[in-house]
Amino acid sequence: MPSSLAIFYGAVVTPVSVDNYAALPRALLCVNSSGLIEWVVDDVEPHRLQDELASKGLVDVEVVDLKDGEFLMPGFIDTHTHAPQYPNMGTGGQFQLLDWLEKVTFPMEAKFEDTSFARDVYSSVVRRVLDAGTTTCCYYGTLHLEATKILAEVINQAGQRAFVGKCNMDRNSPAYYVEPSPQVSKENTEHLINFIRSLSKPPFLSAPSHHPLVQPILTPRFAISCTDELLSSLEAVASSDPSLRIQTHISENPAEIEFTLSLFPKASSYAGIYDHFKLLRNNTILAHGVHLTNEELDLIKQRGAGISHCPTSNFNLSSGVAPVGVMLDKDIKVGLGTDVSGGFSLSILKTIQDASIAAKVRSINHREDSNIGTSPSKFANKPLPIPTLLYLATAGGASVCDLEHHVGKLEVGKNFDALLVSIREEGTELNPGIWGNGLGRPKAASLKERKALLDTQLERFLFGGDDRNIRRVYVQGKLVGGTVFSM
Amino acid sequence: MPSSLAIFYGAVVTPVSVDNYAALPRALLCVNSSGLIEWVVDDVEPHRLQDELASKGLVDVEVVDLKDGEFLMPGFIDTHTHAPQYPNMGTGGQFQLLDWLEKVTFPMEAKFEDTSFARDVYSSVVRRVLDAGTTTCCYYGTLHLEATKILAEVINQAGQRAFVGKCNMDRNSPAYYVEPSPQVSKENTEHLINFIRSLSKPPFLSAPSHHPLVQPILTPRFAISCTDELLSSLEAVASSDPSLRIQTHISENPAEIEFTLSLFPKASSYAGIYDHFKLLRNNTILAHGVHLTNEELDLIKQRGAGISHCPTSNFNLSSGVAPVGVMLDKDIKVGLGTDVSGGFSLSILKTIQDASIAAKVRSINHREDSNIGTSPSKFANKPLPIPTLLYLATAGGASVCDLEHHVGKLEVGKNFDALLVSIREEGTELNPGIWGNGLGRPKAASLKERKALLDTQLERFLFGGDDRNIRRVYVQGKLVGGTVFSM
Ligand SMILES: [Zn+2]
Ligand SMILES: [Zn+2]
Repeated sequence: MPSSLAIFYGAVVTPVSVDNYAALPRALLCVNSSGLIEWVVDDVEPHRLQDELASKGLVDVEVVDLKDGEFLMPGFIDTHTHAPQYPNMGTGGQFQLLDWLEKVTFPMEAKFEDTSFARDVYSSVVRRVLDAGTTTCCYYGTLHLEATKILAEVINQAGQRAFVGKCNMDRNSPAYYVEPSPQVSKENTEHLINFIRSLSKPPFLSAPSHHPLVQPILTPRFAISCTDELLSSLEAVASSDPSLRIQTHISENPAEIEFTLSLFPKASSYAGIYDHFKLLRNNTILAHGVHLTNEELDLIKQRGAGISHCPTSNFNLSSGVAPVGVMLDKDIKVGLGTDVSGGFSLSILKTIQDASIAAKVRSINHREDSNIGTSPSKFANKPLPIPTLLYLATAGGASVCDLEHHVGKLEVGKNFDALLVSIREEGTELNPGIWGNGLGRPKAASLKERKALLDTQLERFLFGGDDRNIRRVYVQGKLVGGTVFSM
Repeated sequence: MPSSLAIFYGAVVTPVSVDNYAALPRALLCVNSSGLIEWVVDDVEPHRLQDELASKGLVDVEVVDLKDGEFLMPGFIDTHTHAPQYPNMGTGGQFQLLDWLEKVTFPMEAKFEDTSFARDVYSSVVRRVLDAGTTTCCYYGTLHLEATKILAEVINQAGQRAFVGKCNMDRNSPAYYVEPSPQVSKENTEHLINFIRSLSKPPFLSAPSHHPLVQPILTPRFAISCTDELLSSLEAVASSDPSLRIQTHISENPAEIEFTLSLFPKASSYAGIYDHFKLLRNNTILAHGVHLTNEELDLIKQRGAGISHCPTSNFNLSSGVAPVGVMLDKDIKVGLGTDVSGGFSLSILKTIQDASIAAKVRSINHREDSNIGTSPSKFANKPLPIPTLLYLATAGGASVCDLEHHVGKLEVGKNFDALLVSIREEGTELNPGIWGNGLGRPKAASLKERKALLDTQLERFLFGGDDRNIRRVYVQGKLVGGTVFSM
């Protein structure tokens, strides 16, 4: 047994399944020196704490004692975002997708030709994303090899778990921002994959865990921007490497879909295009999927690909409201994505809130369309319950990234990728929009009352929290962000 | 001319109309000792500043010199919120309206029987609402006279502009939280009105402005909770006092509407109930109006009443998506409301973002329903442009409150109720989710470029800002909130 790295005593919240989470008000949790969770004891009364530790052979060990209003939870997983678009965040919402790319996005991305600009921006991006509680992040870079290498380096140094890809795009892009040929696109992609795989973990993460922190991901931007020849090249890259993740966009906006289908007249559907080039597999992350047909959803399920649901972006670019409930009913893997800067917030908390709104909008529309009460389905056309929202933001995202054996839950054998959240009352450094553990609430006494209080604290954090409530961000057991880290 | 109180030099943003605002990158603005805006010069080049001041007879005066990335704008106006529900904020989103009242809201409101609890909560609420940039706020209290008197006192001491009402509710409420009779309800209401009108402005706001800071507002909770007898009593109170504002809820949720109409079988419509009791007039604030019919909207327009649009709440309680564009096309007065804790954020910034989402959802639904491109209307079924969102949050709210001659715009003769916003780059004390004045953006040189930069800064603030970006909050020329104030 490796020596213990850290022991936590206090409230723990962790998803169990798509519609259930565990709320453990007095858990004892041990992280070993590899950054993995070594053991968890669900409920330890305070007077039993030393005995419990002794029974594990631990005496005189330091214990991180969580206060009232603090709890541990898995770190957020952002399954879809664009690192070079963060400087545009909060602007461009008057456009829909294709205009937005042309007028707002491509001009910004083109600037990353300049590597010192890239280093400045990416350093700031990664710091902010980590401090917002995102412990695993799927980043699109630009089409530039050098800038994307810098992005991977910056992430690795910061200690964030991530997938990093450079965009493949050799057509239907402005002359100032397009790859010159499928060959160049493929070569640069292979170069980047090798570069990322050669990165050494930073010294503070040099524990003997063999799982890499930053991994490459194949990133054909979307079908519109890729010639058949390029897609064939990427098929070859992917086929030779089944563990290589793939990310792309799908079925986001009506005009985009129409244009896409016109470019591939022989394809059966949008999803069929990617499937034709063997890019739809069990480690493919498809962003959006707002307007996917039933047949496409079934194909995606069959291939084991996952969906990154990006509700903030879908609202902001007037793309539509994705049928997440239908996807969940079909047991398709779903996670959440901020899709900055189509989305105007880098925080998965905002994405959770908007995922809730999106599901409620679908339930409202369904109510108005059908004039019937409730749907016989489990998720479709219904609000998403809190356990499901928590799942999507953590364990669901892990499945989408093909990382479900490593992160997404606080359970034995998983990496300790976690947040120490605080919603303590009246701390002036906290988000003033959050009320803490309940003005006038009777002090919780029984375990059941403590669980109910923890349920409420989780809900308050998800619907009222921000980065100020995230005191510590851990990746693989190491403190890499949060208000305490930045102080 | 009263002596000047403060002179500001820098960027100013102010709404002009429902679809236009003025962006003045180098304005000079003078606030007089009554807290009113005395004069504004639209564009003053730096080397002309002293001459401009001299031409006003001002030499050696102190000037607040705004930095790059800072601008002044009117304070936010929250036209609908519930002070006693703030401790519940961020919880209860799994319920729809009637269940939410019973299970979440009434139990909390009942606690305000305890006046020391009320003082604690209300002190915290008002501080946080002011620091979030809300300079004018329409508050519902509970049904308790004493607690609501405390709310008015706390607001007055803090220097916030506000309307404060105690809820009238004598039926269809739980036995532990209902008024015993229409008589008691009316007497307590009249007592509260007199109490609020007798409040003296706090010493720091003792300037010779005759306009009161805190005003009473008649607050029949909603038709469901008021007997005919109570509504008749309130009609008498209102009729004897045409300047008395009125606030209530209308047409929020399908089940609520159905129950309401069943209680008033002779009424022509939900709006018709209030109209029957002469409670629909040019200073009535109607919260929600999600499902109002065309006839009801026309009646509301005819009576000159205004709508408080509460999109965060409407989404959160699955109430529906209000037809704000239709209201604007009919030239009905519309402002924004947080409706805490139906809404889960106290910030009008969040309300602005959700008003944008709500309009986009209606445009998406319209696109899918009709399969036609654009609607011939100006606002209906279209996204709300930035100038309209700004207007709704400020000048529109002022109209709804019948305060349009006093606040809502930064123009001569209005009270200086204003925010000093900062989105400066990389200030660590700022919201890390906001990027400042543009990484790599060429320095603005011409007036046109400066205006474009200010447009972008406003958009970034509205879609990415939070309380950390609000450095100073002024009401009637006095600093009463913001990060600088709280430090
Ligand atoms: Zn994207
Ligand atoms: Zn309300």
